[in-house]
Amino acid sequence: MAYTLAEIAAQLGGRVLGDGSVRIQQVATLEKAQAQHIGFLANRKYQSQLATTQAGALILGEADADASDKPRIITEDPYVYFARLSAFLNPEPQYPVGVQPGAYVAASATVHPSASIAATAVVEEGAVIGAHCVIEAGCFIGAQAVLGEHVHLYPRVVVYHHCVLGNRLIVHSGAVIGSDGFGIAMEEGRWRKIPQIGRVVIGDDVEIGANTTIDRGALDDTVIEEGVKLDNQIQIAHNVRVGAHTAIAGCVGIAGSAVIGKYCRIGGSAGILGHLQIADHVEIAAFSLIGKSIRQAGSYAAIYPFSTSEEWRKNAVHLRHLDTLAQKVKQLEKELKSLQGTQA
Amino acid sequence: MAYTLAEIAAQLGGRVLGDGSVRIQQVATLEKAQAQHIGFLANRKYQSQLATTQAGALILGEADADASDKPRIITEDPYVYFARLSAFLNPEPQYPVGVQPGAYVAASATVHPSASIAATAVVEEGAVIGAHCVIEAGCFIGAQAVLGEHVHLYPRVVVYHHCVLGNRLIVHSGAVIGSDGFGIAMEEGRWRKIPQIGRVVIGDDVEIGANTTIDRGALDDTVIEEGVKLDNQIQIAHNVRVGAHTAIAGCVGIAGSAVIGKYCRIGGSAGILGHLQIADHVEIAAFSLIGKSIRQAGSYAAIYPFSTSEEWRKNAVHLRHLDTLAQKVKQLEKELKSLQGTQA
Amino acid sequence: MAYTLAEIAAQLGGRVLGDGSVRIQQVATLEKAQAQHIGFLANRKYQSQLATTQAGALILGEADADASDKPRIITEDPYVYFARLSAFLNPEPQYPVGVQPGAYVAASATVHPSASIAATAVVEEGAVIGAHCVIEAGCFIGAQAVLGEHVHLYPRVVVYHHCVLGNRLIVHSGAVIGSDGFGIAMEEGRWRKIPQIGRVVIGDDVEIGANTTIDRGALDDTVIEEGVKLDNQIQIAHNVRVGAHTAIAGCVGIAGSAVIGKYCRIGGSAGILGHLQIADHVEIAAFSLIGKSIRQAGSYAAIYPFSTSEEWRKNAVHLRHLDTLAQKVKQLEKELKSLQGTQA
Repeated sequence: MAYTLAEIAAQLGGRVLGDGSVRIQQVATLEKAQAQHIGFLANRKYQSQLATTQAGALILGEADADASDKPRIITEDPYVYFARLSAFLNPEPQYPVGVQPGAYVAASATVHPSASIAATAVVEEGAVIGAHCVIEAGCFIGAQAVLGEHVHLYPRVVVYHHCVLGNRLIVHSGAVIGSDGFGIAMEEGRWRKIPQIGRVVIGDDVEIGANTTIDRGALDDTVIEEGVKLDNQIQIAHNVRVGAHTAIAGCVGIAGSAVIGKYCRIGGSAGILGHLQIADHVEIAAFSLIGKSIRQAGSYAAIYPFSTSEEWRKNAVHLRHLDTLAQKVKQLEKELKSLQGTQA
Repeated sequence: MAYTLAEIAAQLGGRVLGDGSVRIQQVATLEKAQAQHIGFLANRKYQSQLATTQAGALILGEADADASDKPRIITEDPYVYFARLSAFLNPEPQYPVGVQPGAYVAASATVHPSASIAATAVVEEGAVIGAHCVIEAGCFIGAQAVLGEHVHLYPRVVVYHHCVLGNRLIVHSGAVIGSDGFGIAMEEGRWRKIPQIGRVVIGDDVEIGANTTIDRGALDDTVIEEGVKLDNQIQIAHNVRVGAHTAIAGCVGIAGSAVIGKYCRIGGSAGILGHLQIADHVEIAAFSLIGKSIRQAGSYAAIYPFSTSEEWRKNAVHLRHLDTLAQKVKQLEKELKSLQGTQA
Repeated sequence: MAYTLAEIAAQLGGRVLGDGSVRIQQVATLEKAQAQHIGFLANRKYQSQLATTQAGALILGEADADASDKPRIITEDPYVYFARLSAFLNPEPQYPVGVQPGAYVAASATVHPSASIAATAVVEEGAVIGAHCVIEAGCFIGAQAVLGEHVHLYPRVVVYHHCVLGNRLIVHSGAVIGSDGFGIAMEEGRWRKIPQIGRVVIGDDVEIGANTTIDRGALDDTVIEEGVKLDNQIQIAHNVRVGAHTAIAGCVGIAGSAVIGKYCRIGGSAGILGHLQIADHVEIAAFSLIGKSIRQAGSYAAIYPFSTSEEWRKNAVHLRHLDTLAQKVKQLEKELKSLQGTQA
């Protein structure tokens, strides 16, 4: 499908400058765009590419309205406009409606007739699958689990028994929702398992990345509030609460019972220890371990700066004696003061 | 089901104080408990909740026997008692016995008649599935693999060929046991794969978390001893040995041929380099990389302390010059001593 | 099967010393080898084991040709020779050719008649499976995805729609190729999803470990060049490019649009931030976060050295005041110089 700039602006808003009849098939980066593409400038860093791009049209911010004379759509936030246009130009594929041959749906499960259940998917007793859900191949929906409407589970997602998923969720392959939390108690030299009888409860408009794991609660529930976005390979332990609209990058680990605020942004491979509280609007840098609660919005970090291995070896050794170094400086200050006293 | 305190104590031990006829349906936290729940105090931190809890009964330690006048069970270790009671009140669901329609079991595989093999599970040639095993949907048991008794594989667990699992194992969804170790040799500018012909051998009473991976040995086996507890998303490389009753939190990575002692506790996202030896009873803090063997029981750490990003930037820059700073202090000490000499 | 040393050398090269008629069944470590095994010395560390090994024969380097009088094969690189011999002695098992009962292959998919598609595997519309591919149980090949020849997908691998895999790939269980990249834009307090319309394109001879995830590109493709070796649980974000023959150990995270050079080696749990460029032949130590582009080949590190928790506590606290410490030293130098001046 192709649309003219004028048709696009009629659909999505924005102001057309130049020839509104130019036809666009797809979005693209300025660097790769061809005549049938619309490019966009959302980052000053790429401004020089405006001069060389082969794009047939552009999405520009108000400040850059005259930075090119190509056919263009002017809008407040070019990145958001691009996102909306890309969704418009790339609609989700259609999935066959109904329970497909080769799917296993328990007799007591409730599947809305508009839902799509693929071959090799399994839906257990008492589970509820809402309208327009897409359950792809190899997915498993445990007993009594409840999925809202328009939930899309990519192939091989596991939802354990009794978990509750809201509306418009997207869950990518290999994600596991509701596995047992890591609850053990030492008893006479052996670990005793603590049954994990809570659930995972997930709000609306959450997206969960590939191979991410979210453990069910030990007694109370693990809760992911609405609008949370989780990247791949994240581990969320039992009884964690992640506040609404928080975005977490890949490989992050959040230990048990931590409570993360709303609108937080957590960088890749970061970690949060158990039972901590993180305020709203906190940003945590990649690779940073948070070991105490954070009560104030703001940006936090704990990253060891890299260098050549040779330099690293030379410098890192002192970390094991930093206290001694600090004591030496204290002692030097004292002795110098004393020396200065004798001079005075 | 509901039980009186007296019935519970008859089953699990402990001393009943107050009305032994009060009926309990479920365990709960002090904060969330209602009349049909029994709460427990296992952590001083929550002691103040004894005054306000709505729990119908309590589990208390000897020292707290009189800290409430609610009906209560007094026991030596309230947390362990709670764990046992929770298991009593929340028995595993029943799984249908036998090979279910839609399961694929090879002709030469041996499945004990008391085992449960779900639809879409696959059991390959020569595999052995012991008594009372539960193999849920989408699991794969490779050729010649052997599972003991009472092994529970949640949906979508993969056990590669020839691996050996003990009795009473629990393995959560997405775990992969026996994938090839990362064995490669550089030969004339290309990596040559080294066949991984060892197995994974796992002892009794091990629990393995969701999406955890355990590679098969290169030549000898990778070994997980009895009673080991592994959380989610752990990576255990080829030829590692994890000692009995060691507990490892989520996202830990253990490199090839490392040998971990018994009764160790390893915090989340920690790492252990290859070929190291870790003594028994070692505790490793979250996020800490262990780069040398540890011969002594004890607690070890390597965590960069977090701060605001602004403070971090100000301080971290000096890490790259720590050696220079240390040299400066040495020089200052020398010059000060010389100066003090001239004063004397 | 067993082979004489002479037969092995005829097949794989190398010079036989001692009795060439000794029969070998399997490769083994010097420590575990018995009479039917051939051991190898590839690491000086194990040289003392030459005296005690029970191996029936040995693989030795030229320099060690006379270090044992057992029957032996002398070769330039004993580790590579061992790798080749192990592959010779341990051929891949045979998989049943054709689409097996219980596999779901869409009508418009193209499966080469020499390929093996296992029960519970799913191949979607328009997908292409090349000659001699092995698609094991529970795998999912998305619509229009293309697999070259001799691709081996272990059980439960997911390849999303439109992704392109080269020849001779090995992908281990739980790996996910082509899941959506983490692309979101904040719009009036809510995250808007940015459609991920790029693909993952993977070159020849790549191996991908268990539960590794590789996201599809946002607009352009994510690219893994030929000969790349990826261990388990690696996360590769959208639009990353990994250069040919680079080897990446377990649990590494590579953020969006990073470009990694050829022949790099990245240690376990390391990380690379988004949009960085890493030169060819760069080595990155385990657990190190790379926060700026690296333009020079070489070895880089950023590891906090571990110690006992007690020592760690004592030392780490000063990291938060390292700038103050550095200022103090500067001040001391100044004051000392001034004091020295008054002395002169």
